[in-house]
Amino acid sequence: MNDIPRRHAALDMSPDEFRQIGHALVDRIAEFLAWIQDRSNPVTRAERPGQIRSLLGSGPFPEKGTPAEELLSEVSTLLFDHSLFNGHPRFWGYVTSPAAPVGILGDFLASAVNPNVGAYDLSPVATEIERQTVRWIAEMIGYPASCGGILVSGGNMANFVCFLAARKAKIPWDIRKEGVGDTRPGRLRIYCSTETHTWIHKAADLFGLGHDAIAWIPANENQRMETEALRKQISADLKGGMIPLMVVGAAATVGTGATDPLLEIGAICREHHLWFHVDGAYGGFAAALPEASADLKGLRDADSLAVDPHKWLYAPLEAGCALVRDPKALLDTFSYHPAYYRFDEHADEGLTNFYELGLQNSRGFRALKVWLALRQAGRGGYERMIREDCRIAAELFRSLGSHPEIEPLTCNLSIATFRYVPADLRGADRSGEEYLNKLNTAVLARIQSGGMMYPSNAIVQGKYAIRACVVNFRTTVEDILGLPDLVVSTGREIDKEMRPA
Amino acid sequence: MNDIPRRHAALDMSPDEFRQIGHALVDRIAEFLAWIQDRSNPVTRAERPGQIRSLLGSGPFPEKGTPAEELLSEVSTLLFDHSLFNGHPRFWGYVTSPAAPVGILGDFLASAVNPNVGAYDLSPVATEIERQTVRWIAEMIGYPASCGGILVSGGNMANFVCFLAARKAKIPWDIRKEGVGDTRPGRLRIYCSTETHTWIHKAADLFGLGHDAIAWIPANENQRMETEALRKQISADLKGGMIPLMVVGAAATVGTGATDPLLEIGAICREHHLWFHVDGAYGGFAAALPEASADLKGLRDADSLAVDPHKWLYAPLEAGCALVRDPKALLDTFSYHPAYYRFDEHADEGLTNFYELGLQNSRGFRALKVWLALRQAGRGGYERMIREDCRIAAELFRSLGSHPEIEPLTCNLSIATFRYVPADLRGADRSGEEYLNKLNTAVLARIQSGGMMYPSNAIVQGKYAIRACVVNFRTTVEDILGLPDLVVSTGREIDKEMRPA
Repeated sequence: MNDIPRRHAALDMSPDEFRQIGHALVDRIAEFLAWIQDRSNPVTRAERPGQIRSLLGSGPFPEKGTPAEELLSEVSTLLFDHSLFNGHPRFWGYVTSPAAPVGILGDFLASAVNPNVGAYDLSPVATEIERQTVRWIAEMIGYPASCGGILVSGGNMANFVCFLAARKAKIPWDIRKEGVGDTRPGRLRIYCSTETHTWIHKAADLFGLGHDAIAWIPANENQRMETEALRKQISADLKGGMIPLMVVGAAATVGTGATDPLLEIGAICREHHLWFHVDGAYGGFAAALPEASADLKGLRDADSLAVDPHKWLYAPLEAGCALVRDPKALLDTFSYHPAYYRFDEHADEGLTNFYELGLQNSRGFRALKVWLALRQAGRGGYERMIREDCRIAAELFRSLGSHPEIEPLTCNLSIATFRYVPADLRGADRSGEEYLNKLNTAVLARIQSGGMMYPSNAIVQGKYAIRACVVNFRTTVEDILGLPDLVVSTGREIDKEMRPA
Repeated sequence: MNDIPRRHAALDMSPDEFRQIGHALVDRIAEFLAWIQDRSNPVTRAERPGQIRSLLGSGPFPEKGTPAEELLSEVSTLLFDHSLFNGHPRFWGYVTSPAAPVGILGDFLASAVNPNVGAYDLSPVATEIERQTVRWIAEMIGYPASCGGILVSGGNMANFVCFLAARKAKIPWDIRKEGVGDTRPGRLRIYCSTETHTWIHKAADLFGLGHDAIAWIPANENQRMETEALRKQISADLKGGMIPLMVVGAAATVGTGATDPLLEIGAICREHHLWFHVDGAYGGFAAALPEASADLKGLRDADSLAVDPHKWLYAPLEAGCALVRDPKALLDTFSYHPAYYRFDEHADEGLTNFYELGLQNSRGFRALKVWLALRQAGRGGYERMIREDCRIAAELFRSLGSHPEIEPLTCNLSIATFRYVPADLRGADRSGEEYLNKLNTAVLARIQSGGMMYPSNAIVQGKYAIRACVVNFRTTVEDILGLPDLVVSTGREIDKEMRPA
């Protein structure tokens, strides 16, 4: 059988060549991992698109090939010299964590085996590892282990999967056949606080309901949903003949890390038979901490829950996860049986075909990196990492008191927000507030392009805030305590430019 | 700055440890790549879920961690011993290609750098590489290089992105705000042939229109859409006050590789101002061949086009690609500007934030593996690989004539279909046809679980067919010419069991 001549296809590579290029790449990546942990190297060089484009060139698709070894060496240099590094200890922007090294290796192995985790037959081990990963994620945060679930590309998609399951479960006609029906403004109703991430906009829009279906419930001064307002809105809508479908609670908000009153929202949902969805993309994994708030732990009452392993499980991109209390809800929403598939024979053994549980058909093995990290750290390791991230944010927030030109704003979980306020503008009026927003916008932009530390921003009750979000197992208290000084010095500098004496 | 003590987080790994584990993993993967090319090794062991679960164990999420080195060694063995290998030269099932080795290395590097390719600022090089990749893909297949585009997880998602762009462009009200409106059966109309992949079911359902919105146009005996029926249906719908939105053409169908009459469908769309979408997930890249049919090359007339680099560009999973003629169509459909983002400052330089062009927010660097493969093979290399895959399918089909118990059915692009027909059942009647369908279903199941070769199935005008789809740069003519013999011997065996003498 083995005297078959090879095709010598342009993309094939002998095992020896693979070994040689692979070893060189491992060495380059190991050097890179050392390099980004040297605090004197920048988080980003913040180059403009034109600069990057000139490095890449603008030629057409080349006619002739280039040896793989040369390509990998060239592109490694390009990436190591010109990227933004969320693996740097001083990256606290948005909610993008460093890639766990074991996850990097997991992605490598997953890509080599290349299972299509759409159907069990095409991916026996990978399918079972994904099932185990989903179960362990649920166990970790106290969600019922009997739930259904699927790994997806990230928080948007995890929330979308749950949104679609809610829509299918709560619309009282055959939506798959007939569609969402009449979408007169606000006929179908979705409730969420004004602090909700933009995924809810996209979901209402993409899945046919339109933004008008969203009932925006005000948040209080702690960025938490006002449940009294929620109750009133639901009652009014029911009286108006509308069809309330679901309430979205945050665990926690992407801006300030505030957790909605999930226990009470859950009770309201049960009372009105609404679907209770929790967006735990940022904060869901903090429910694993024994000391987590009762509200955060309240995510266990949700009908569906989105969490994001590429956030607080420190998986490399992409890895989100949708969990639903009733596993049948995903099948009801997504399963099809086209004529050209035959993947049903092991149904007796509780076989899982993940293509029936979500939007994708062919699917990669993103579970491997998550599963490896869960096993490498264990529950204890994750608790220590998440707790330490929270402690670092709290230490930062505590330190702000000693900076008279800093106004501390919020601190929840691992997110602290604050802003620069020149001494003469404390207690500013409305026009002063407008100036402060402009000033802090400029401060953040200069810090981000400076590249030595990388916070991001939040809007806190109309105030443009500097936001440090610590989802970074390389960050230390020593790293972050330098941030207020940098904000103050940058703030003074820009204030001087904007308000020349 | 560098005297900061490390956190010693459970997931951190020293560069030396990474180097050591990485080198060992490269060696394991290189051995694996040699192993799967030995034809005496099986494509799959076709084990049942229970067997795999017993290997994984059913324990709870472990409290304590396990060293990464041990984990990677353990899981490599598990995966190499118990997976299905689409990288095996004798895998011709569905449309899942081997992972190009350079793509495997690309995924490794992408995961190490871990750029979030949602926003330019977070991924300067990666964003520009994705832009270049999209442009080169368009150039390769003759689609206008001025198009917009985005890489997504696969064919479903690529078609979904295009479907949503069509919906936004063609619905004459503010759909993002008001939703899809009244979905009385068939008010909004989508046209596609009965051979269309199940993504269209999912899209009509998930995006709020419902299946009733799909007008199924019959396919002729060559599995190509009947354009006369399409014309009649559009006219009837317009007279009935319905709102025709889009026509979907296939390049090519997933079952038999038939290409719809794209030139004529394009003309009909222009005549009626309908959106012309082409699903090129399987066959789109074959339009790169100079000898491709005029209809296949007709995909260049489409308003949107889905292609799948993890199919005929041989990228590891996941990589799909959505292209739209008018780049603004994606922004119009997907762009949001939430308060907690600030990514607009370089707009003057034509900066791309990919989160504004699709469903995802955080996004991984799937472009790297595709870009590397495009550069390694070049246009010439790809043409040779795709042409050779087609030639292998044609050689298989030609060889069927010498097997009196084989009924050849179809051969298009790199897909050949045929079935086993016992000598006494040639020209069977209706009950004979039912038996033949059962028989060939059983034949395929036994061949797939036997694991020495891995075809899949198609339904060709009601006939259950064995289907070989060659999207595999390791397959040779010698490999595939053994398939008819295997089908015949398996067919005889099962026929004897099902119809004992």
